Amino acid sequence: MTLRIAVAGASGYAGGEVLRLLLGHPEVEIGALTAGGNAGTRLLAHQPHLLPLADRVLTETTAAELAGHDVVFLALPHGHSAELAARLGDDVLVVDCGADHRLTDPAAWERWYGGEHAGSWPYGLPELPGRRDELRGARRVAVPGCYPTVSSLALAPAMGLVEPEVTVVAVSGTSGAGKSLKPGLLGSEVMGSLSAYGVGGAHRHTPEITQNLSAVAGREVRVSFTPVLAPLPRGILATCSATLTSGEDVRAAYERAYADEPFVHLLPEGHWPTTGAVLGSNAVQLQVTVDRDLNRLVVVAAIDNLAKGTAGAAVQCMNLALGLPETTGLSTVGVAP
Amino acid sequence: MTLRIAVAGASGYAGGEVLRLLLGHPEVEIGALTAGGNAGTRLLAHQPHLLPLADRVLTETTAAELAGHDVVFLALPHGHSAELAARLGDDVLVVDCGADHRLTDPAAWERWYGGEHAGSWPYGLPELPGRRDELRGARRVAVPGCYPTVSSLALAPAMGLVEPEVTVVAVSGTSGAGKSLKPGLLGSEVMGSLSAYGVGGAHRHTPEITQNLSAVAGREVRVSFTPVLAPLPRGILATCSATLTSGEDVRAAYERAYADEPFVHLLPEGHWPTTGAVLGSNAVQLQVTVDRDLNRLVVVAAIDNLAKGTAGAAVQCMNLALGLPETTGLSTVGVAP
Amino acid sequence: MTLRIAVAGASGYAGGEVLRLLLGHPEVEIGALTAGGNAGTRLLAHQPHLLPLADRVLTETTAAELAGHDVVFLALPHGHSAELAARLGDDVLVVDCGADHRLTDPAAWERWYGGEHAGSWPYGLPELPGRRDELRGARRVAVPGCYPTVSSLALAPAMGLVEPEVTVVAVSGTSGAGKSLKPGLLGSEVMGSLSAYGVGGAHRHTPEITQNLSAVAGREVRVSFTPVLAPLPRGILATCSATLTSGEDVRAAYERAYADEPFVHLLPEGHWPTTGAVLGSNAVQLQVTVDRDLNRLVVVAAIDNLAKGTAGAAVQCMNLALGLPETTGLSTVGVAP
Amino acid sequence: MTLRIAVAGASGYAGGEVLRLLLGHPEVEIGALTAGGNAGTRLLAHQPHLLPLADRVLTETTAAELAGHDVVFLALPHGHSAELAARLGDDVLVVDCGADHRLTDPAAWERWYGGEHAGSWPYGLPELPGRRDELRGARRVAVPGCYPTVSSLALAPAMGLVEPEVTVVAVSGTSGAGKSLKPGLLGSEVMGSLSAYGVGGAHRHTPEITQNLSAVAGREVRVSFTPVLAPLPRGILATCSATLTSGEDVRAAYERAYADEPFVHLLPEGHWPTTGAVLGSNAVQLQVTVDRDLNRLVVVAAIDNLAKGTAGAAVQCMNLALGLPETTGLSTVGVAP
Repeated sequence: MTLRIAVAGASGYAGGEVLRLLLGHPEVEIGALTAGGNAGTRLLAHQPHLLPLADRVLTETTAAELAGHDVVFLALPHGHSAELAARLGDDVLVVDCGADHRLTDPAAWERWYGGEHAGSWPYGLPELPGRRDELRGARRVAVPGCYPTVSSLALAPAMGLVEPEVTVVAVSGTSGAGKSLKPGLLGSEVMGSLSAYGVGGAHRHTPEITQNLSAVAGREVRVSFTPVLAPLPRGILATCSATLTSGEDVRAAYERAYADEPFVHLLPEGHWPTTGAVLGSNAVQLQVTVDRDLNRLVVVAAIDNLAKGTAGAAVQCMNLALGLPETTGLSTVGVAP
Repeated sequence: MTLRIAVAGASGYAGGEVLRLLLGHPEVEIGALTAGGNAGTRLLAHQPHLLPLADRVLTETTAAELAGHDVVFLALPHGHSAELAARLGDDVLVVDCGADHRLTDPAAWERWYGGEHAGSWPYGLPELPGRRDELRGARRVAVPGCYPTVSSLALAPAMGLVEPEVTVVAVSGTSGAGKSLKPGLLGSEVMGSLSAYGVGGAHRHTPEITQNLSAVAGREVRVSFTPVLAPLPRGILATCSATLTSGEDVRAAYERAYADEPFVHLLPEGHWPTTGAVLGSNAVQLQVTVDRDLNRLVVVAAIDNLAKGTAGAAVQCMNLALGLPETTGLSTVGVAP
Repeated sequence: MTLRIAVAGASGYAGGEVLRLLLGHPEVEIGALTAGGNAGTRLLAHQPHLLPLADRVLTETTAAELAGHDVVFLALPHGHSAELAARLGDDVLVVDCGADHRLTDPAAWERWYGGEHAGSWPYGLPELPGRRDELRGARRVAVPGCYPTVSSLALAPAMGLVEPEVTVVAVSGTSGAGKSLKPGLLGSEVMGSLSAYGVGGAHRHTPEITQNLSAVAGREVRVSFTPVLAPLPRGILATCSATLTSGEDVRAAYERAYADEPFVHLLPEGHWPTTGAVLGSNAVQLQVTVDRDLNRLVVVAAIDNLAKGTAGAAVQCMNLALGLPETTGLSTVGVAP
Repeated sequence: MTLRIAVAGASGYAGGEVLRLLLGHPEVEIGALTAGGNAGTRLLAHQPHLLPLADRVLTETTAAELAGHDVVFLALPHGHSAELAARLGDDVLVVDCGADHRLTDPAAWERWYGGEHAGSWPYGLPELPGRRDELRGARRVAVPGCYPTVSSLALAPAMGLVEPEVTVVAVSGTSGAGKSLKPGLLGSEVMGSLSAYGVGGAHRHTPEITQNLSAVAGREVRVSFTPVLAPLPRGILATCSATLTSGEDVRAAYERAYADEPFVHLLPEGHWPTTGAVLGSNAVQLQVTVDRDLNRLVVVAAIDNLAKGTAGAAVQCMNLALGLPETTGLSTVGVAP
């Protein structure tokens, strides 16, 4: 089988990472590459690391350009995917790296993003309970946000064992912010500096983490979430904690939860995750411990925000949706140092 | 007045920063510079940025070398300061950048550091309630740890307003680890990577933060503390949170607490601290907010771990102890970008 | 004496560094701070490290705003300084951090910058032969470009000893590019990457280096100059080489040239310059050697592009022009690590 | 065909990169992993990014451990490979990532490395004229040094067109220095700083570049080589120049030289190489231009020092030696940003 693929938003970081992974995927052929303002330019100007596609010319992101492919990856700002998807036909697999179809609650959508809710799609985090089955055969997939991916996987196995109030501080590289030309994202500003943003529950990924953990817990979980920007291009390290309510062996719970998962690795005791070890890979590295003085669970988890946090998840979901082996074209091997 | 100063541990990062600040201090003259294994070598080999002292030769760290100065700064591994200080005379001001005399509880010392407790000295964080008076005229000062400095200042004003259980995730540059030759501190390892360490309450700064906040609160405060290492040489950004129990205006509480402090700056609303903005300076930048969904206070604070976090505090305490204006030789101006 | 100072372009990196240095200068008072698009905003939004000036509001860059000061620093894009200066009066010291008045040859100006040449001003590199005297009492100063500063100081003492064809490869941090919002300057792009630009003699600093070295040599010197961008905010390391034509002791020539210079330091043999050691300082660190296989002189020099490379030179020239001690408010002490 | 592979020096950076690439190679099975001081520990402790091999235990680097494999990669300090290879049998392919067998001139070996020359092996840079044929069917391969790889490929096509004196300034990430525990390689030292080393022709890669270019030129080429250390883990950007002696179209010469090379890419005019674009890939990105004022060729080339600069070349040579398609398991796709 050779799947014909289109990527909308091919000049951005998420689109570039989808392409990087697809270039190593044995079952695909890369078709249309589209963009907004960059339409008409060659891919080399935007993705100089994708040499095999260097001469490809970006076309306008329109339904017509994206039509005629088996799979369409959307790597667009939120608000654009519903209309495009509606025009692509139900047999086309549409994998949306944007936020439009992640939240199930229209009120939450309106509060956090504004505008009308476009409805929810199967949620592309197969490692959460029940999610994998929804993704098999799906023709629409909502790829999770990068922070929700790492935070939800870090805390999901603990949901029956802790108070339903969790604290997440997640430190991220800068590529999560995309190629937006903001002064605060200039190299001179980010190198040598650390900053927090979206503090006080203001980041849009908060309701998504809440949705995921509440679904697993079967009750409302309250999430204190703070993202921190650090001087590296890729990677998220999440430090998550919650007060234990159970005497159960938490490590055993994590081992059970992820024993058969190809991409989620609970490290042996004494080893702690680093984002460097997952750079470029689809792996999630986890470690758990208990602060005995506080009877508090602390989980540290690392992902590559562009890989498992976005494009790797997108390819993983494509594999699932189309009946390919879930790990096709994906790896747990990072590029380090 | 010209004070004659000695620095023990002059080849390390803390000692180097003490010297950097003293080179800009109008009332001092730099005397003996001592070291351990680096004794006999020139300072240039270790501190190439301290050009005016480049030709100084390091001598052995002994009481005899340190004798005859008005002020002795100790920047040594823990366990070495008590004996040296005992031999220096009560009229000499000894400012210890190490951990030996920070904890007041001998049991805590034994648990976290091992060995016998050497006793506690006036604690060099004048911005905490009651501390400044203890430092005036003191001849022994225990400089706080870098994480306790930023965490305690971030949370102290809230102590009456929140549950006595706080969460601190503090992201730090690598200089806090000193010049130890460990594989994990190599540039190749730390650049492009994030890692947590001392997770689960295992870091030795945990009891110091606990001691500080409990003293302010007047009751035992439980501290969940996780340090994270990020790819930058200097700076700590602490994200601190706790559940509010009071309807009082928390911002007003912070404004009151720090209105007259020369080095602690609550930023105007909408501005968030960055470590880049305090690089090289003695300033603490703070911002506070409330997560209304969780009724949780979130405070973000930034310091330079080597400046306000170590050497700046040391100089500030010297000024206080000797009756100089507290800000002499110190600045709130950072080196950015 | 208290000098009243205005800074035009106060929201940029060069303007910010001028202000950082002036905040430590004992003879000045900071008056008008002006900007282009940022006029009307507070300085805190642009220079969060300059806490003492945080509440200052930027005004429009006009001659009227800048009038009434003893010294006006211009940190503007090229093409703006001549007209402003013309309206400021001959008694006002105008220190231009931009390129407008550096080149003496109108043809060179037209070739490299385009438009009409605004004339040349005394060139603010007092360490070059003859330059210091031109700067004493001057009321107009052209601050050199950052690359010309480090390259010219690295090679000037060798001008009689080498073939008049030199090669300079200078690696720079990103702040030299200013706050321009270009994709290539985003943190995600510059971290973890190296790139060359202006290759083949295309960088505008080439004619300035040529002008400096030719003036010292008394004949046309040909300069092969390539700048490289590296992932750090500040600093330039220049590697300069040329074929020796003389058997004279080159080290002695450098020692002679800079023996009395307060800011230019030839390091002892065996020590090599690093940009980290000069961060934030006005120092130039140099080392020279001879490749005996090729009979080629190799000089390595390090500066902070924003300090000695721009704002430090500007303050140094102000001191000279106004008869203050040349080192007032400046330091050779870097902020490291 | 499944080749059984051993890697000696598996806990270092070069060995780790060989393993990373082999984990994506379809024709190999990974056998013995050996080390020096790290023997007896698990690979996870040293290479946390190689999850599929995490539980492998390192054994001692001895001929006995390495015996019984089809291919043995040596990633050892120089001086160790000759004796090991002698005991491995002539049918085993030995690919030496170290320096022992790169230089053909025993006198050069003695001058630059000391001790007795162990003889030269086929040189693993197939893109140089005549080298590919020597590698086909070889059972001993000397993998080039990282700087010689990028410098030689950057200049080889110009050898008939320029004076036989070239200047190379190559900026490198820190992984080229390996995991040596030296103070100057600590993250705190390298981040935010640039430094040159081996200045004046003192770096051991100088004679290797000289050997390569002289062989291509058919006459002695003199090489002024200066390496610079920059704050990034991986990547080398080389800036190379030489005076033109020919009026021939240099771009055409480069196009001809590399038209059929799978890994060497002359970029379209106007695009310049970056190390970020080749991170993790086996690609070489090149651009050439002529400084018309000096009639001087300037070439900029980028590689990943661990990939094409070491381990990628090693795998490429293994493919060639064993008759596999040369590109098997290798990619020109980088991991960016």
